[in-house]
This record gives sequence, C-alpha cells and structure tokens, in this order.
Amino acid sequence: MSQAITPSQLRAQIRSGQHQGHTSGWCNGYVQCNVAILPKAWADEFLQFCQLNPKPCPVVAMAANPGDTHIPEIGPDFDIRSDVPKYRIWRNGELVEEVSDISDVWQDDLVTFLLGCSFSFEEALLADGLEVRNISEDVNVPMYNTNISCKPAGRFHGNTVVSMRPFKPADAIRMIQICSRFPSVHGAPIHFGDPAAIGIADIHRTDYGDAVSIKEGEVPVFTACGVTPQAAIAAAKPEFCITHSPGCMVVSDIPNSKLAIF
Amino acid sequence: MSQAITPSQLRAQIRSGQHQGHTSGWCNGYVQCNVAILPKAWADEFLQFCQLNPKPCPVVAMAANPGDTHIPEIGPDFDIRSDVPKYRIWRNGELVEEVSDISDVWQDDLVTFLLGCSFSFEEALLADGLEVRNISEDVNVPMYNTNISCKPAGRFHGNTVVSMRPFKPADAIRMIQICSRFPSVHGAPIHFGDPAAIGIADIHRTDYGDAVSIKEGEVPVFTACGVTPQAAIAAAKPEFCITHSPGCMVVSDIPNSKLAIF
Repeated sequence: MSQAITPSQLRAQIRSGQHQGHTSGWCNGYVQCNVAILPKAWADEFLQFCQLNPKPCPVVAMAANPGDTHIPEIGPDFDIRSDVPKYRIWRNGELVEEVSDISDVWQDDLVTFLLGCSFSFEEALLADGLEVRNISEDVNVPMYNTNISCKPAGRFHGNTVVSMRPFKPADAIRMIQICSRFPSVHGAPIHFGDPAAIGIADIHRTDYGDAVSIKEGEVPVFTACGVTPQAAIAAAKPEFCITHSPGCMVVSDIPNSKLAIF
Repeated sequence: MSQAITPSQLRAQIRSGQHQGHTSGWCNGYVQCNVAILPKAWADEFLQFCQLNPKPCPVVAMAANPGDTHIPEIGPDFDIRSDVPKYRIWRNGELVEEVSDISDVWQDDLVTFLLGCSFSFEEALLADGLEVRNISEDVNVPMYNTNISCKPAGRFHGNTVVSMRPFKPADAIRMIQICSRFPSVHGAPIHFGDPAAIGIADIHRTDYGDAVSIKEGEVPVFTACGVTPQAAIAAAKPEFCITHSPGCMVVSDIPNSKLAIF
C-alpha cells in the first residue's frame, strides 16, 4: 500500500520524479499545503493580505528569508524547488508553464508561502463518520466566487472564494464544531443555506471544481477556500510568481492533529 | 442597582420573601438552574433519563442523598426548601399548587436535581455581541415539541422539546461555536432551518413560551430545552414531585465560566 509511506519518503519520490500528479489521499494524517511563491517586492503585501484574511489565507509556514528554499517546519529535507509534483509559473498574471521542478527559474528574491488546505479538516470529518460529498462522489470540491470582500492589502484584493459541502443540519452543526478546531485550515464555515445571500447565483454551476449532488434535507455549507489568495494573485498580476498546480500540494511532516487548537 | 447583588444575597432575599418572582436578569455571570424534586422511588430512573439525554437534561448538581436540603456546590447557605422564588407542586401529574416555600411538604425521600438552563449560554451570546431575539423582544423564548425521541429510562420517556433563536447563518455558526463550549447548559444546537424536519408544523405557533420575529435572511436555530425533562415527568405522573415555576430558578454561586469546557 504505497499511500502509507511517510511524507519524507513521498517528497523524495516527488523530488526524483518517481511520483507525479496529485497528492490527495497520500500520507493521511499529515498537513498538505497550498503554495504561493512571490518576489520580495510583492511578498510583504501578500503576507499582510493573508494576515487580514486568515480564513481563506491561513499561513501554515513561510520561508524565513527571501531566496530560502528550505522551510524546516515542513521537513528537514524539504526543498521548495523540487518537492511539489507540479508547479504553475505565472508572468504578469498569465499562466505560462507547468513544470515539475523550478530550480532553473529560482530567484534569490522569491518568498515561499505555504497555506493550509481543506484536506486536513476533511480527514477530521471523515474520521468522525461524516460523509464528505466531493470525496464520496470522487470529484474536486465545488468552489464558487462570492460577494464577500476580502480586506485589501496593497495590490492584493478581491472577493472570497468558498468551497461547498452539503450536510443535513445536525451534521452541519457537528462539521462546524470539528472545523472550528482547525483555524489554520480555513476554520469554521462562513455561511450555510441560501447561496444567493453570498452572491452565488446557481449552486449547480461552480466557478472552480465540480458540482456535487445536494440531497433532500441537506443544506450547502460554505467554507473559505484557498483559491481566494490564488485569485487575488491572478488579479494583482505580479511580473512573476509560482503556485502549485491544483491538487499537487506540499506534503509536510506536520501531523494534522498539531493544527487542532483543542 | 439591585441586580448587582451576589447570589448568596439574592437567595437570602428569596428565603425571606423579599424577592418574589423571576430570577432572569439577576446575578449575571452566575449559573441558574431548573429544579426537579422527585421521590427516591422515581429518582434513579430520572437520573438515568438525564444521563441518556444530556443535551435536554444536563445535571449541574444533585442532592447527595434523599432528603438532603443542602447542595454545597450551589452555595454554602443554599436550602432547596426556601431558595426558589416560586415552586410548583404536582400530584399524579397534576399541578396542584404554586408556593414560595416547600418546608411543610418536604419529605425525607425527596431527591433534588438541578439542571442547566439557557441563561448561561444566552449571556455568553450577548457578551459576544450577538442578538438574542427573545431578550431583545423581552418575551419568553419560543419552545416547541419535536419528533426527536429521547432515550427512555424506566417510566420516563418522551420527545425532545427545543427552544428556538433566529440568527443570520454567519451568526448561527458563531452561536454554535459558543454554545459548544457549554455542554452542561444544553450545548450546541441540535437543528437549524426547516422546522418540519423535526416535526414542528408552524414556527409561528409555539408549544411553550412566546413566538419571536424571524427576519429576512435569518434561520431558526433549535436547541434542546429544559422543558424536556419537565414534560417527561408530567407524562410519567409520579404521585408527588416539585419543580420550579417557569423563570423562577435556583441562583447558584457557580460562575458561568466554570461550565465552559474550553
């Protein structure tokens, strides 16, 4: 069962090119992170944007200094240039390339941000016996643009993007309790029920990801989503930046339970 | 400002007959309790009923032995025979009398149960800046019979009674977080949204208490209620029992914060 390997072993496989593609379902129990790599000239404003909008943009770890390629909290061997299965390279807001190693485009002024992702709380929901619809239907979680403004910071601004998971109300209450324990992976949801109340015109038409079925008696529950900072970066159009490709995350040595505040 | 007196001072005023009527709004910051006093022949089953249904029937304190009139956790001076502003005396399930002192009907086999009440969590909600509609509209909280069965214990059985407070979804999420901290005063709500899903035919017709307005964009949030054990006692029809009159509670020395589990 290859998924039972350690984060360090998986990172070694990614680094060598042996593991390509998604990290979803790998190294259960360990925190996976969204990636944003920005030039120092943009990094301070981005950090402020994250600080002002912690629910969509929870910073799990960041490089201590511009140019640092190692972030010890993630793992003693971790190297941001090689340990993500697939990267997206952006120039002036345009996606120009997808690559499996960024050593040749690395710059000494690049600052790495690693942001919490929903895998951690989804694992906690499953462990509690709740059904996570996007997992049971084996699709990407449905995501939507909303009319909920982020607090702007310098050149970064935009509305909150949310993911949606349907639950019966009693399960939604339990989901709120569980997710409240994990503020650094988006925390408690920010809305449930009427999609129009947060600017979603049609729950069956997603802006990102795939639609999932909503069954009789269920309500949609909306959680701030890590696509929010990506959308803010895309709108700000920095001359250069690097993100992970969707689903191809940094796999850390941090146990999910370390993120639980109680 | 007479409401700033200590619980011990208020109990002395109640004991002497100087304070009559409701305890709501008095001694903010301290736990108030629902009262159920049952003969020993019924008390063991009632305790089991509470143990099986902790959300509607949270036992904050109980007499150590049948006949005990003092419960030190409530206060060193506390006497169950005189320290409730108004009692209801029941015989064979019928309300026969309301009195302000039960010394003359006290029996050596009576077991006193003190159950958590919503005042504690309502205070926490107000302290967080949330509006509690029954308080802002100055009425009793609306309460409803549901189709949610309690787990039966001996002669005690029945459905859960719920209280209802309307909130916008984002405030409902915050309310769920706050109430989750207080399991001994009913804890997290058990339902929100569609009243029919839990057997409530008309949200504007309460079974106990008063209706409150539900504004555009708000959803009703339903919390297990201390009327549940009272309804179970009324249905079981013990030959003798004593409860508090609605709103006339035991005021304890226990700070509300002591009930918070985190």
